[in-house]
Amino acid sequence: QRNLVGSCKMVALCSYETTKLRDAIMLTCGLTAKISVVVFVVSLVMLWNRKYQQFDQVVSSVTAKVKGVAHMQLPGEGAVIWDEADYSGFLQDKNSFFVVTNIIMTKNQKQGRCPEVPRHHSDVSSRDCERGAWDQRSHGIQTGSCVKFDALARTCEVVGWCPVEAKNKPPRPALLASAEKFTVLIKNNIRFPAFNFIRRNILPEMTESYLRKCQHANDSLCPIFMLGDVVNRAGENFSTMAVEGGVIGIQIKWDCDLDHLTRRCLPAYSFRRLDQKESNKTLSPGFNFRFAKYKTVDGVEERTLYKAFGIRFDIMVFGQAGKFSFIQLIIYIGSTLSYYALTTVLLDWLIGTSCYAAEEGQNYSQRKVESIPDKKEV
Amino acid sequence: QRNLVGSCKMVALCSYETTKLRDAIMLTCGLTAKISVVVFVVSLVMLWNRKYQQFDQVVSSVTAKVKGVAHMQLPGEGAVIWDEADYSGFLQDKNSFFVVTNIIMTKNQKQGRCPEVPRHHSDVSSRDCERGAWDQRSHGIQTGSCVKFDALARTCEVVGWCPVEAKNKPPRPALLASAEKFTVLIKNNIRFPAFNFIRRNILPEMTESYLRKCQHANDSLCPIFMLGDVVNRAGENFSTMAVEGGVIGIQIKWDCDLDHLTRRCLPAYSFRRLDQKESNKTLSPGFNFRFAKYKTVDGVEERTLYKAFGIRFDIMVFGQAGKFSFIQLIIYIGSTLSYYALTTVLLDWLIGTSCYAAEEGQNYSQRKVESIPDKKEV
Amino acid sequence: QRNLVGSCKMVALCSYETTKLRDAIMLTCGLTAKISVVVFVVSLVMLWNRKYQQFDQVVSSVTAKVKGVAHMQLPGEGAVIWDEADYSGFLQDKNSFFVVTNIIMTKNQKQGRCPEVPRHHSDVSSRDCERGAWDQRSHGIQTGSCVKFDALARTCEVVGWCPVEAKNKPPRPALLASAEKFTVLIKNNIRFPAFNFIRRNILPEMTESYLRKCQHANDSLCPIFMLGDVVNRAGENFSTMAVEGGVIGIQIKWDCDLDHLTRRCLPAYSFRRLDQKESNKTLSPGFNFRFAKYKTVDGVEERTLYKAFGIRFDIMVFGQAGKFSFIQLIIYIGSTLSYYALTTVLLDWLIGTSCYAAEEGQNYSQRKVESIPDKKEV
Repeated sequence: QRNLVGSCKMVALCSYETTKLRDAIMLTCGLTAKISVVVFVVSLVMLWNRKYQQFDQVVSSVTAKVKGVAHMQLPGEGAVIWDEADYSGFLQDKNSFFVVTNIIMTKNQKQGRCPEVPRHHSDVSSRDCERGAWDQRSHGIQTGSCVKFDALARTCEVVGWCPVEAKNKPPRPALLASAEKFTVLIKNNIRFPAFNFIRRNILPEMTESYLRKCQHANDSLCPIFMLGDVVNRAGENFSTMAVEGGVIGIQIKWDCDLDHLTRRCLPAYSFRRLDQKESNKTLSPGFNFRFAKYKTVDGVEERTLYKAFGIRFDIMVFGQAGKFSFIQLIIYIGSTLSYYALTTVLLDWLIGTSCYAAEEGQNYSQRKVESIPDKKEV
Repeated sequence: QRNLVGSCKMVALCSYETTKLRDAIMLTCGLTAKISVVVFVVSLVMLWNRKYQQFDQVVSSVTAKVKGVAHMQLPGEGAVIWDEADYSGFLQDKNSFFVVTNIIMTKNQKQGRCPEVPRHHSDVSSRDCERGAWDQRSHGIQTGSCVKFDALARTCEVVGWCPVEAKNKPPRPALLASAEKFTVLIKNNIRFPAFNFIRRNILPEMTESYLRKCQHANDSLCPIFMLGDVVNRAGENFSTMAVEGGVIGIQIKWDCDLDHLTRRCLPAYSFRRLDQKESNKTLSPGFNFRFAKYKTVDGVEERTLYKAFGIRFDIMVFGQAGKFSFIQLIIYIGSTLSYYALTTVLLDWLIGTSCYAAEEGQNYSQRKVESIPDKKEV
Repeated sequence: QRNLVGSCKMVALCSYETTKLRDAIMLTCGLTAKISVVVFVVSLVMLWNRKYQQFDQVVSSVTAKVKGVAHMQLPGEGAVIWDEADYSGFLQDKNSFFVVTNIIMTKNQKQGRCPEVPRHHSDVSSRDCERGAWDQRSHGIQTGSCVKFDALARTCEVVGWCPVEAKNKPPRPALLASAEKFTVLIKNNIRFPAFNFIRRNILPEMTESYLRKCQHANDSLCPIFMLGDVVNRAGENFSTMAVEGGVIGIQIKWDCDLDHLTRRCLPAYSFRRLDQKESNKTLSPGFNFRFAKYKTVDGVEERTLYKAFGIRFDIMVFGQAGKFSFIQLIIYIGSTLSYYALTTVLLDWLIGTSCYAAEEGQNYSQRKVESIPDKKEV
């Protein structure tokens, strides 16, 4: 009986052990479920982030061609017609184009001496004029004399291109405000070097007759833009902006999933003003620069100075393409597995052990069961 | 005897425990081997990806200088010689240069009224001419009149620069096809700011006499390129491309491993046509733009209009440099370890425990062995 | 007694088990501490790398406006005053501006025949002149004749723009060395598209009167730079560099932490010479290009050829902004947790098990304690 009690306790202990191991197996099963969840989530994240794809950045080439003629009423000149050679001409740049929208013209300037334009404080005496002096707003180098500018004002005499540019404020409305109706054809060829994938914004199905008629305003894939539309889409008013000029960004975005039909790899255009809006607070608002046309009259060089206000359109191409890459997938899985490796190893071992133990436990309890009758016999 | 049976069972249980723990130790050893493999693989990946290096992107500065003179047979002008001031001139850009290869010249244009050039449908009556109208292909603004263009055709009268540009198709062969023989010296200075590493594509060992004679076609490091070679290497034919113009990309790739001798940090050049090849299907194929030279004749402004076809060469510099960085190595190892940390902690504990247990098991079985004779004694 | 011994051994075993489990609990506690450390370190790394932030690269727009007038003593021309239309003019580029600092002028060139300039080996006979030949340094195409260049030298006759450019070396000191005093106003508008955050380098608090007076040399936020200062800050001497020209980089760096006050998002300017310094070893050092002004004299086209040496200022804008992003934080935590997931699961299980075991162990030993008196009774 004492033995029996001991044996029973033994049995109790053993069956307890068995129970614990069975519980462990249950726990292991729960663990397996959790692992499945983790693997599932990781796979989802992988799919969502297209981690199975190799990505490449766009290499882009842009050319832009502005078309249009405009009537311009030049002060003291009469009406002239300007075409693209006049308003764009040499102002070619790789990823931008410029359209003159307003002009301050100073004709027949020659090297010589003449009075500077008056500034805020118009009353100038010779003491204010220093020989050789100039500052940011000067049109020449001061001679040191003080001369009559007009009936009212006297200013320092300067040596430079004379007569100096007198006007400061651009004409309102802008002389070339009708540039609003000009069109620009933007040709954008892109390449994703890693995939040797080439595409252009003029799609294969676009015929010449389509391109003659289409307008981006009506058809978001048409590569021909009316300047006024572009400025409007950037949230600005063309005729306001034309006065002092500015900078407009034309963004072309290519986001291509090359695993899908490549037809879906299409440009998306967006527009935005890049510089600060015209404001009275700002020094030199808008965008302008000066250039000159030179000629020789009776052996003396003359120039016509142009202060050209205009809109610079910066074409910015962004984009990336992704394509299924077996190597990328392997690398991704590999990099993930490298983190899971030890865990998994551990896991195998633990599950293996507990299963083994569980199995052993069962065998053991069977042996127990065998041994108990053995005891009963006794 | 009953006790003995109980004791024997006890011993069996204990020796079983011992075996299990020894197995566990064996498993642990296998685990250690597996961990070694994982660490080895991770190290290999690290070496292969140069994870021990800090990387930096190239900051590049490019200047290009075209040289060459060409004989050009201008229609109705006779032979002229053009040099770089004529065919490149103001068309300076930061990372590209342009060479005029073909010209449509319209001389002595003045502001005035003249007939527009006929289009497809040459028969035009006054009803088709709308005062103030113009479209993308107009050379001026319509006056509303319909006038005689030549013996055959009548067209709308326009106000603008007259006479209007009559030719539409560029001359074949290209007027400046001999630009094929022009050479360009590309100076590319690069910098990797993070390493304060400066390099240029004109290598220190390149003497002036070497640079006078070398050609990229014969020596892949020579920074002097014959335009024809560049176009050929891009898979195009210069004289064909010269007719309508186009865009060629000159890619310079710097891939530097600064842990090796820096002499190995060399530029690799490649060439590629960036725009679409000339095709009849495309509106405005190739690359051209208009500019004008202005003059005043008897007080009236005249201009010579040039429709310049040409090849724009875009120089694109890519590159990165890697350099051993102790901090980078530490960060990499750290970031890896942070993932392994818990695992390792766990592992230590588990191995520690099982060893402890195994040790204990051995002690325990030894104690057992001690106790068994004890029982035997009894 | 035998039973008692057996029972005692049983108790010893059980109390040993209990001890082991308690040790395990202690170990678990140590583990918890280690985990806390790991979590703490990870959090620190996260904070330090601003992993809780979403980052975006800068989109930038730059305009530059040079101001200044300079006295230039042209050889054989007398003094002239140049202003920005003369020295910058058409040389507008998106992210750079150019200032002419030195000039080789060749006046009144006409198409014709004239002797080439002599090279190193001045003695040339007709045998050396090949009809139609030219090389990189030619000013025209050889006619095959050998003609007198001056009293000393004979050279090959060329057809081209005559007379050919005779001078090779730029004047020293540079003709426009006084460009050192010119100022440039750089307007840089940036945007971080992801945050719709706009900023410009002309800060809201900068009034017009401030901008009239400020200089970058005195105030590191002033967007007005004296060219001489820029060149000095790049470690160069303006008057030396002006002779042969060069390229200077103006770097504007925006590194913005938008979680702080946005007022702290300020531009940092730095300057650097981008090309190789003037050296005798190098072919065509510095930076120069040729352009021409054309005119018609008595029906014949003439040009004035300018070989313009100058400094090109490349404005390079770098930058990124970070902003707290809940999603980013979640993603970061998520990605970290995905690695920890299994570990944690395991951990829970293990700690859970050992606690459970420990608890069980305690219950078990309590049961033991109960059972021992039981035995004692026996």
